[in-house]
Amino acid sequence: MKPQAFLAPQDMSLAETRDLLAVARNLQKNPLRRDLAGKTIGMIFFNPSLRTRTSFDVAMNHLGGHAVILNVGGEGTWTLEYREDIIMDGDKSEHIKEAAQVLSRYVDAIAIRAFSAGTSWEEDRREQIHRAFAAYATVPVINMESQLHHPCQSLADIKTIEDRIGDPAGQPLLVTWGWHPNPLAMAVPNSIVMEAAKFGMEVRLAHPPGWELDSAVIETAGTLAEGAGGSLRIYNNFEEALPGARAVYAKSWGSITHYGDPQQQRAAAAPYRDKWRVTLEHMERTDNAFFLHCLPIRRGIEADAAVLDAPCSAVYDEAENRLHVQKAVLLRMLA
Amino acid sequence: MKPQAFLAPQDMSLAETRDLLAVARNLQKNPLRRDLAGKTIGMIFFNPSLRTRTSFDVAMNHLGGHAVILNVGGEGTWTLEYREDIIMDGDKSEHIKEAAQVLSRYVDAIAIRAFSAGTSWEEDRREQIHRAFAAYATVPVINMESQLHHPCQSLADIKTIEDRIGDPAGQPLLVTWGWHPNPLAMAVPNSIVMEAAKFGMEVRLAHPPGWELDSAVIETAGTLAEGAGGSLRIYNNFEEALPGARAVYAKSWGSITHYGDPQQQRAAAAPYRDKWRVTLEHMERTDNAFFLHCLPIRRGIEADAAVLDAPCSAVYDEAENRLHVQKAVLLRMLA
Amino acid sequence: MKPQAFLAPQDMSLAETRDLLAVARNLQKNPLRRDLAGKTIGMIFFNPSLRTRTSFDVAMNHLGGHAVILNVGGEGTWTLEYREDIIMDGDKSEHIKEAAQVLSRYVDAIAIRAFSAGTSWEEDRREQIHRAFAAYATVPVINMESQLHHPCQSLADIKTIEDRIGDPAGQPLLVTWGWHPNPLAMAVPNSIVMEAAKFGMEVRLAHPPGWELDSAVIETAGTLAEGAGGSLRIYNNFEEALPGARAVYAKSWGSITHYGDPQQQRAAAAPYRDKWRVTLEHMERTDNAFFLHCLPIRRGIEADAAVLDAPCSAVYDEAENRLHVQKAVLLRMLA
Repeated sequence: MKPQAFLAPQDMSLAETRDLLAVARNLQKNPLRRDLAGKTIGMIFFNPSLRTRTSFDVAMNHLGGHAVILNVGGEGTWTLEYREDIIMDGDKSEHIKEAAQVLSRYVDAIAIRAFSAGTSWEEDRREQIHRAFAAYATVPVINMESQLHHPCQSLADIKTIEDRIGDPAGQPLLVTWGWHPNPLAMAVPNSIVMEAAKFGMEVRLAHPPGWELDSAVIETAGTLAEGAGGSLRIYNNFEEALPGARAVYAKSWGSITHYGDPQQQRAAAAPYRDKWRVTLEHMERTDNAFFLHCLPIRRGIEADAAVLDAPCSAVYDEAENRLHVQKAVLLRMLA
Repeated sequence: MKPQAFLAPQDMSLAETRDLLAVARNLQKNPLRRDLAGKTIGMIFFNPSLRTRTSFDVAMNHLGGHAVILNVGGEGTWTLEYREDIIMDGDKSEHIKEAAQVLSRYVDAIAIRAFSAGTSWEEDRREQIHRAFAAYATVPVINMESQLHHPCQSLADIKTIEDRIGDPAGQPLLVTWGWHPNPLAMAVPNSIVMEAAKFGMEVRLAHPPGWELDSAVIETAGTLAEGAGGSLRIYNNFEEALPGARAVYAKSWGSITHYGDPQQQRAAAAPYRDKWRVTLEHMERTDNAFFLHCLPIRRGIEADAAVLDAPCSAVYDEAENRLHVQKAVLLRMLA
Repeated sequence: MKPQAFLAPQDMSLAETRDLLAVARNLQKNPLRRDLAGKTIGMIFFNPSLRTRTSFDVAMNHLGGHAVILNVGGEGTWTLEYREDIIMDGDKSEHIKEAAQVLSRYVDAIAIRAFSAGTSWEEDRREQIHRAFAAYATVPVINMESQLHHPCQSLADIKTIEDRIGDPAGQPLLVTWGWHPNPLAMAVPNSIVMEAAKFGMEVRLAHPPGWELDSAVIETAGTLAEGAGGSLRIYNNFEEALPGARAVYAKSWGSITHYGDPQQQRAAAAPYRDKWRVTLEHMERTDNAFFLHCLPIRRGIEADAAVLDAPCSAVYDEAENRLHVQKAVLLRMLA
């Protein structure tokens, strides 16, 4: 029997997610446990991390367990190949087929961060590093952000939303693109749209033309929203989506249209600088909404510093919730 | 109420320091405790470390706690901005305002190493990375070496001095500059001069003309020395300061005059090579002094290998004392 | 009295090794202990690692202890000098003489990985980094792979052999070179040849002319084999050594003849590509042998993917055994 993998918000049903949030809230009140004594999680990073690395490491410690951290390439561990049936005479030292099976002998779960944008969205949307680990590992696999999803982030997001405004069902959430000097990963917007849809929110997704999210994500989110009595509507002007919004989630992401061409991407995005940046004045046009962002955020770029420093900002609670929900995920998958 | 920060020797009074050293000596005899069970320190490194990284990590473990280590930039965590009110369209991914507040939700104290010399001493002497963390963190902040101070080192130094010669008050300590191929940070000499002054030692500070320490440091140290019945005198020839010295502390540092220009610095320092290097013959001209250095040291450069290998060398005890005093600091700030 | 060092298979007698394997098997059944509570191992990496890093870290945690990981150079700790009596005006920041003595004050054992091939085998075969740590440390030193040996790997290998075919004495083991795009370290073949000889196996070592192992290693292994009632025979065609083999250990290594000249090495090795690669057809010509490799392995290069994925492959058990034998080593040296 293949062990569990937690790779995307839709890997957990609404009921399961609600149960998990209840556990997370309990852990927030009583943080120290010993359920995972003698257990280890292997955390594999292909990309940098502050919140994820710290919160998972602290989470394991709070539960009596231990985290081993592996940075792929450079000073850490070997470069890893994911392609099937390849003659490995290139620059990769080890295949994930081996790495996943070996690590499964040492640790009780494997968590992976790998979100770097390559040259082809068709390639990247397949999350091949995560999928290879999930296929070959014999222990649970947790997504700490892939090219496609960041499900621990969206669990923290939905907990923050519930903590602020109660039952999310039917409540308007604006998820808005923001201008940024670099094309960023799409995992965070994909996951929050999916999660909010699952909870039956009235999801308002705003971005300029050309910054559409992956069509399969939108389709699944639409279906989820419908099933939960919510909705998903797309805006090409985020200011139109402000009135009535109870929460504003800002996040920049790269364009699929210009994927793999950062210069072209920057040129195409240039007209949106300053226009697609959340200000206090925008927040005032909502229904007393609070502000969300997964962090890291660039002050004065995706949102004004004044927004981040205002009482309406929930970004530190949102970051803290990473700890609580991940402890619940770890208990669910390892205890 | 703002939590404690330990950024410089003068952040702790003489009485507090004495108390802390007593705790450190007790921990040296009985190293294992559980006071910090379930507690975590976040250690943020902008620069390399051997002693600091290992001794803090072991210290937390000995006290029942846990250390999370974050290397800023590269394979570790995001590059961090410290400037207030800046539009972040440059090369920094996250502001310390966020990093400090987020980490404060995960860990029980934040320790920071950032001593890299930039281009301007006026800028660097403001220790802006440390000050930003201290301003925004909601948990205690510990200095693991800034551009200006290394207070955990000077605690280990003063403990080593007490262990070797008893009450430091009135005892002559020579702190001498040494030649080195690279301009190094000034934190260690600044802190030991301050700490020794606080304990009323007869501080002899020796360096070639042009290698003066920061004038505010010298002024504060002079005031501290005077208040404690000690003294601070500056020599431009360290050999004059040898007679009567009970301890010789060698340490190279960069020149403020040539700050930010390593080539000019090297040219100006060239005449001092071999002349400003502690030898056994120098040690014999003291009052049976022992030898101190914070390490890492370059053998044959700041001191002869023979000095390091002689019984007069206290450098390994001094390094060991980092562990004991830091455990006392951690108990003081976290327990 | 100088503490123990475990640098090579011959540092442990056959009887001691048998005892250790018995402890390892017991730990495999009952993995969690508290013998090393409050104890720390310092792991120093000059080279990347996946199995070694993870298995030692997990091993310490399973035994109640703690591992501190130091990457030398780069973002981690200082660059280290090993040469005696040198004036350190080059690119190294600290001497191992200091690093080893300081770490000995913080941790209860030091483990070192440093296998990078330099320009001279005469230099590298002296394992000077390991030897310097062993000379200066005042705590036990464990070899996590040097230029010459990887004794924790060969312990895992011999356990795997015993687990599969019982008493190794008199059983034919083929250790065969494989083609690889890069010249790799010789530590693994050196150590398994030595270990297998110690256990009295019929060791068949196969490689093309010019890929001879170090002559001192071969000589010692021959003596060990003779003393244990086994044998060591060298083949220049691995296919001749297949009949009767009970285990096939594939591993590429660099040529001493072309040492320090990767391009010349590649040219000399080119004719052996595909010929020196283990296939299922080769495995069928043995006496139902199982397949060993220390990993990382390049699929389709040192062996066919089909071999790694076949029931005859023991590579994951072999990797798992790293954990069990290292726990036994740690208990032996630290408890």
